[in-house]
Amino acid sequence: MRKIDLKDYSIFVGDIWNDLNAFLKEKKYSRIVIIVDKNTKKQCLPKLLDKTNIDKPILIKTKSGELNKSIKSCNKIWKEMMDEGIDRNGLCINLGGGVIGDMGGFCAATFKRGIDFIQIPTTLLSQVDSSIGGKLGVDFADVKNSVGLFKNPKAVFIDPCWLESLPYRQLRSGFGEIIKHSLIDDSKQWKELSQIKDLKKVDWSSILVPSLMVKKRIVEADPFEDNVRKALNFGHTVGHAVESHALHSDQPYLHGEAIAIGMICEAYLSAKITGLPDSELKNIKDFINFHYDKNHLKEDSFPFLIHLMTKDKKNERSEINFTMLTEIGKATINQTCNHDLILESLDYFNN
Amino acid sequence: MRKIDLKDYSIFVGDIWNDLNAFLKEKKYSRIVIIVDKNTKKQCLPKLLDKTNIDKPILIKTKSGELNKSIKSCNKIWKEMMDEGIDRNGLCINLGGGVIGDMGGFCAATFKRGIDFIQIPTTLLSQVDSSIGGKLGVDFADVKNSVGLFKNPKAVFIDPCWLESLPYRQLRSGFGEIIKHSLIDDSKQWKELSQIKDLKKVDWSSILVPSLMVKKRIVEADPFEDNVRKALNFGHTVGHAVESHALHSDQPYLHGEAIAIGMICEAYLSAKITGLPDSELKNIKDFINFHYDKNHLKEDSFPFLIHLMTKDKKNERSEINFTMLTEIGKATINQTCNHDLILESLDYFNN
Repeated sequence: MRKIDLKDYSIFVGDIWNDLNAFLKEKKYSRIVIIVDKNTKKQCLPKLLDKTNIDKPILIKTKSGELNKSIKSCNKIWKEMMDEGIDRNGLCINLGGGVIGDMGGFCAATFKRGIDFIQIPTTLLSQVDSSIGGKLGVDFADVKNSVGLFKNPKAVFIDPCWLESLPYRQLRSGFGEIIKHSLIDDSKQWKELSQIKDLKKVDWSSILVPSLMVKKRIVEADPFEDNVRKALNFGHTVGHAVESHALHSDQPYLHGEAIAIGMICEAYLSAKITGLPDSELKNIKDFINFHYDKNHLKEDSFPFLIHLMTKDKKNERSEINFTMLTEIGKATINQTCNHDLILESLDYFNN
Repeated sequence: MRKIDLKDYSIFVGDIWNDLNAFLKEKKYSRIVIIVDKNTKKQCLPKLLDKTNIDKPILIKTKSGELNKSIKSCNKIWKEMMDEGIDRNGLCINLGGGVIGDMGGFCAATFKRGIDFIQIPTTLLSQVDSSIGGKLGVDFADVKNSVGLFKNPKAVFIDPCWLESLPYRQLRSGFGEIIKHSLIDDSKQWKELSQIKDLKKVDWSSILVPSLMVKKRIVEADPFEDNVRKALNFGHTVGHAVESHALHSDQPYLHGEAIAIGMICEAYLSAKITGLPDSELKNIKDFINFHYDKNHLKEDSFPFLIHLMTKDKKNERSEINFTMLTEIGKATINQTCNHDLILESLDYFNN
C-alpha cells in the first residue's frame, strides 16, 4: 500500500481496505450513501460491503455512461438523498468510474451546501485522472463538465483489484491519460511506457504511482486551473470535441480514446508551433496508433468539431486555447492557433 | 460610504457607484452578465447601466419569487451563459433580492466550475442577510436552499437608494432579519430598534451597518456553519417550515415575515428550555406583533410543519435542531426539544 499525501487529503494506492476501515471508524458519519451504476453494483459493491462494516448503507443507482452525466441525473441523486433524510454529517462514497466520481462528488458537494465524499475509482481512467484534483461536475448543453466546481474529496482509495475485470477498451481509455501525464511532465515514464506491448499484462500499481505524482505536482501548484494546471489539458481541446461529437453516435469514444486522438492532433500543432521535434511527433503518433484502433474522423464533421472547440471552458476572449509540447516531458500552456492549422491537424490524424 | 472588510472581499454600504466603477475598471472582465428579474430590470437596471460603463452587458432575466429559485431556473441561466459564450474570465452581477443573489451566485459559482460574481442586493432582506456569508443555492424538493454551496462573492455593493421604492412588506421582511441579528448578538441595537414605530421613516444606512457587523462577526468565526454560525438560524427552524408550507398557497409569506413568526415560537421555546426571561419573551412577542400583521397558523397544518422541520438542513441524526436565546443579545446553538413543546410554541404564537 502506497499513500500519497496531498494538501488536504490522501490517496491510498494498493490494498485499500485497512485504510478505508480506519477512515470510516475515525469519522463516525451519521449515514453512508454509496453511489453505484449497474456495473459497479454487480462487480464492486459486494466486495466493498464485505470488506467494510457499513451500517445500513443507502444505495443510489445511477445510469452509467457519459450521456447520463447530467443535471437530470443529479436531480435523481439529490432527491434520493433528501428522501433518505441524509444530513450534513453524512458521507457519500462514489464507487465507480469518472461519471460517478464527478457527478456523485458534485451532488455531495452541493447537497445541503456540501457533505463529505470519498472516491473509490474503479476504472483505470478514474484512478489515474478524475479521482484526484477536485474537479467535479456534469455535462451541460453538450459541453463536457460545463457545470461543476472544485472541491477535494476527504480521501481517494485506489485499488488495482478492480482492474482485473475491466474490459480492454476501458484499460486503453485510462492508459491515454497515463500517456498524457508522461508527455507533459515525465519523460522517464514515457520511456518506460514505450516498452508496453500488451495492456492486459501490466503491473498497474507500479505505473499508477508515478502517473499520480505528475497530477499531484500539477494540481497542487495550481488547484483552480489559473495557469500551470492547464498542462493537463494536452490532447483535450481536440479530444473533448471529438468525444462530444461522437457522444450521440452509435459508437461513442471512451474518454481516453478521444484524448488519444486529440494528443496526435495537438502533438502535430506542437510540432508546427512550439517546436516539438518531428521525430518525437512520430514516436507519439506511432505509439498511440499501436495501442488504439485506427479511427477516421469524417471530414464533414470538421466544422462542427471546430465549433465545439470554440465552446471549450479553457478558452478566453473567444480564442481556442491549447496546451502544447515543446518536447516529450515538457508542456507549454495558453497556446492558440488559427482554424486552418487545426483542420490540418485533423487531416494529419486521418492520414 | 462605509466599507466593511471581510477576509476575502469587501462590502460597500452607501453610495456605491465610485467603488463599483473602480472594481470593474481594475478587474478587466471579458464579458459581464447581469441577472435581473422583472422588477429589477425596470427599477434598478437603468440606474446601474447609467452609472457604470459596462460594454455589451448580457442580460439574463429570471422569474422572480421563491417558487422560481429552482434547478429549472438554473438550467435556463446556465444555458444562456453558454449560448452567449461566457468564458471563465467573465463576471456575473446579481442585481436583485435574495432569490437572484442566491441563485445567480450558485449559477456563477458552478458555471465552468466557477466564474466571478458580485452581489448588488436591492431589497432590505438581501442587503442585510443573504448577500453576505457566501451561502448560495436553490430550493429543491420543497426544501429551502437544499442544493447549493458556500462561496464568497468578489464584492457586495449595498445602496439604500433601492429601498426608497420598496413595498412596505419587503421592508418588513428585511426588518425581520435585522431584529434577529440584534436578538442573537447585539442587545444595544435591540434597544434602538425597539424605538422604531414606522418602517417607512427609517434611516436604513445607520441600521444596516451594525446589523451587517453582527453577521460579519459570526460568519467569519465559522464560514461553513460548523458551529457558532448556527446562531443565525434563530427563528429559522419554525420560520422555514412556515415559509415552505405557505409557498404554494394563495398568500405566501415573505422570508422575514415567516422568520418573525418563527422568532416568536422559538423565543417561547427559549423561555422553556434555555432560560430566556418571560419579560423578554413578552417584549419580543409584542414588538414583532406591532410590526407584523397578526397571522394565524392553521392547527391542521401543524403535523406537516413538524414534518418539514425534520427535513431541515441543520438537523443531525434526525433531531430537529434549534438555536435559542438565553437572553436578548445572546444565543445558544444545537438545542433540541420534543415535538409536543414545538406544538405548544405554535399554539403560543396563535394565542
